[in-house]
Amino acid sequence: MTKLITPRKLKGFWELMPNEQIKFDNMISALKNVFDNNCFLPLDTPVAEYSEILLAKSGGDVDKEIYRFTKGNTDMCLRYDLTVPLARFVAMNINVLEFPFKRYQVGKVYRGEKPQKGRFREFYQCDADIIGENLSMTADAECIKLYQPCFDALGMSCVVEISNRKILAGFFESIDKSENLTDLMIIVDKVDKLPKEDIYTMLKEFDLSSEDCRKLFEIISCKGRFADIYNKLKDLTDNNTFQQGLDELKILSQKLNAMGMQEENYTFNLSIVRGHNYYTGTVFEAYIKGHRELGAIGGGGRYDNLCGNFLDKIMQGVGMSIGLTRLFDIISQQNAIESTSNIEIGILAFDETFDEGLKIINRLRNNGIKADNIGENKSFKAKMKEADRRNIPFILVVGQDELDTNIYTLKNMKTSEQEKLSLDEIIAKLKK
Amino acid sequence: MTKLITPRKLKGFWELMPNEQIKFDNMISALKNVFDNNCFLPLDTPVAEYSEILLAKSGGDVDKEIYRFTKGNTDMCLRYDLTVPLARFVAMNINVLEFPFKRYQVGKVYRGEKPQKGRFREFYQCDADIIGENLSMTADAECIKLYQPCFDALGMSCVVEISNRKILAGFFESIDKSENLTDLMIIVDKVDKLPKEDIYTMLKEFDLSSEDCRKLFEIISCKGRFADIYNKLKDLTDNNTFQQGLDELKILSQKLNAMGMQEENYTFNLSIVRGHNYYTGTVFEAYIKGHRELGAIGGGGRYDNLCGNFLDKIMQGVGMSIGLTRLFDIISQQNAIESTSNIEIGILAFDETFDEGLKIINRLRNNGIKADNIGENKSFKAKMKEADRRNIPFILVVGQDELDTNIYTLKNMKTSEQEKLSLDEIIAKLKK
Repeated sequence: MTKLITPRKLKGFWELMPNEQIKFDNMISALKNVFDNNCFLPLDTPVAEYSEILLAKSGGDVDKEIYRFTKGNTDMCLRYDLTVPLARFVAMNINVLEFPFKRYQVGKVYRGEKPQKGRFREFYQCDADIIGENLSMTADAECIKLYQPCFDALGMSCVVEISNRKILAGFFESIDKSENLTDLMIIVDKVDKLPKEDIYTMLKEFDLSSEDCRKLFEIISCKGRFADIYNKLKDLTDNNTFQQGLDELKILSQKLNAMGMQEENYTFNLSIVRGHNYYTGTVFEAYIKGHRELGAIGGGGRYDNLCGNFLDKIMQGVGMSIGLTRLFDIISQQNAIESTSNIEIGILAFDETFDEGLKIINRLRNNGIKADNIGENKSFKAKMKEADRRNIPFILVVGQDELDTNIYTLKNMKTSEQEKLSLDEIIAKLKK
Repeated sequence: MTKLITPRKLKGFWELMPNEQIKFDNMISALKNVFDNNCFLPLDTPVAEYSEILLAKSGGDVDKEIYRFTKGNTDMCLRYDLTVPLARFVAMNINVLEFPFKRYQVGKVYRGEKPQKGRFREFYQCDADIIGENLSMTADAECIKLYQPCFDALGMSCVVEISNRKILAGFFESIDKSENLTDLMIIVDKVDKLPKEDIYTMLKEFDLSSEDCRKLFEIISCKGRFADIYNKLKDLTDNNTFQQGLDELKILSQKLNAMGMQEENYTFNLSIVRGHNYYTGTVFEAYIKGHRELGAIGGGGRYDNLCGNFLDKIMQGVGMSIGLTRLFDIISQQNAIESTSNIEIGILAFDETFDEGLKIINRLRNNGIKADNIGENKSFKAKMKEADRRNIPFILVVGQDELDTNIYTLKNMKTSEQEKLSLDEIIAKLKK
């Protein structure tokens, strides 16, 4: 006998039990339908890329987390997001793709961070992006609007909180702090998480005057409808970038309206900046309506040079993403009460009637009903126990009497109700 | 400006263009429906496993092809098939899974072989297996039968060629050649590809007499219905294993019949052995009906000790797989004539009517129609050209007149036919 190896799964690599997997697959499939309906094209890039490609853009932080290895002479990495592969794909196919190019991708990504609750080393990302040479604000609006049918498809409701980085960038420009833009944006990103005094202390380190701090807080405390925000901020500075940011928000607001985005499903919140440095204009985060405490379920924004590492040509993009792992956790918790089976009807047949049972299963399946044989070679009691353990909603006993009379007892396992029916009646009852 | 990097994809890693991806996704989704309908549970194991787990079973050949690497102290590999991860999963969850455990998985696997036509380093596998402690022949029959609805769902028809390794194993036992079983099976596997003389020469190397060779050819030339094969072979040897093989084929044939497998969709062919050494009983290969020259599109069989490296307990299994890459190539070649778009109707609006166009798009999408805006900010001529390049079947021009009268011209881009219709009529026409 060979020495036994303890079966283990890689730490931090996500794996669902089959009954959870069904729900996850249903979620993905509902989202894919929405993306298809909105005319986004599916893409499925390889899980690995040349290191040269994948590391072209990344800063220091990502490097440590990356799974990098060689095979023969090939230096390669597992992808850590779906955006760099998109950039590589667009650059490779720049002459054959039709722009604006709208693509979505649902796929696994890899980050070798310390596994902890809600953080995985292998997990799913779900992105929809629009790429083009001169993208109008229609593209930004479309990405934001997309959350609405996505959440609808999952039986939920969203609130997307929207800002435009040009407003803060323009403000910092107006007070001569452009060179500290990255650091200052990181501070703004913490406004929700830290006490106001700490934020002030951090800002002072960059020599912001009290008046500058006051104005900054005036901007980032703006929340609500565009018209109100505009009236409050329009005279704050005549800086061009600042005013352009306001203009873009205005157009965005119009387009969202034209696209049928309900006012209850979006709002403006100028403290939204998004962590990533590559966002240049519109930025947004999506929350479950009434459940902001659960954190952002998705986010995205406008970036102005997708393929900069691969092409001379400037390709703009705007993208939205959905945090599937988080969303799935929330959905699972809501539906945890009911444990379901993948089998709609279990067939209990005996030695003599077993093959007739198989025929019935075939007929049911041909009618789109998920029927399966339960407890072959087991006693009747053991069959019943198995049907129970498998949470099967209906069972059908196939004995010789039933075959002779074509009258079967359909038992509802939840209510224990029994009905005497012909096979055709059973099919009619269970068929959707 | 940063130095540009040439955008390249890893050699041998499969990547489809979006319009092909749509077809591939449809294919997967059709197959998943069949697996669901047949009560197989979905599984989605990680792309990587501990090397200890993945290499526990593999022979020499697989090792060279494997993508193995370390991250920190973790020695890991990309999976080269879906069977070892299944074994690991079953062993890990042996106490919570319900057996027989029927699972399917569609996922990418990795083999660092030389890329060549039809051979990839990253490609999809699609497996359905049934695992249990004492599996009856019903499980074998179910895996074989499964090809029929799978092929149906893709608009094709299958022929599954079936054998049982016990027949040949028993025969070799009867002539005292059990110790050379592996080598002899490899020779039999080549019968279709090499001239008969070469096979004879190879067999002679293992000291098979002319009479043994004659009998062997009598067995492996058996093709067709079970009853005929049985009559021909039943007296060839009274070896137990041989007779057990025949018995199993007989039961299999009965179960397939009970499951509604049409006789035109399967046949017996005793030269089928399958390459893999781990098959112990039933083996089979699936072909497209009338197109055996395209080679096997799938195959599988019975194995008797799935979790041997991880568990004391003997878990049997039987599995079928479908070669998705090959199947997709064939389907694509058949449908190559028609180039389709992901957009069902293109909306051509002008500056003044653009937002009204967005409203119409929203209404169409809410009715399940894939509508999109075409050529924003382009001239009418350029819009038309774009619609044409994108192969969009219908277009709708949204001008002020159309909005005022609610009468739109729906243009069929293939036939150039034009119809004057209200928006409701257009929705009714395009809605499925």
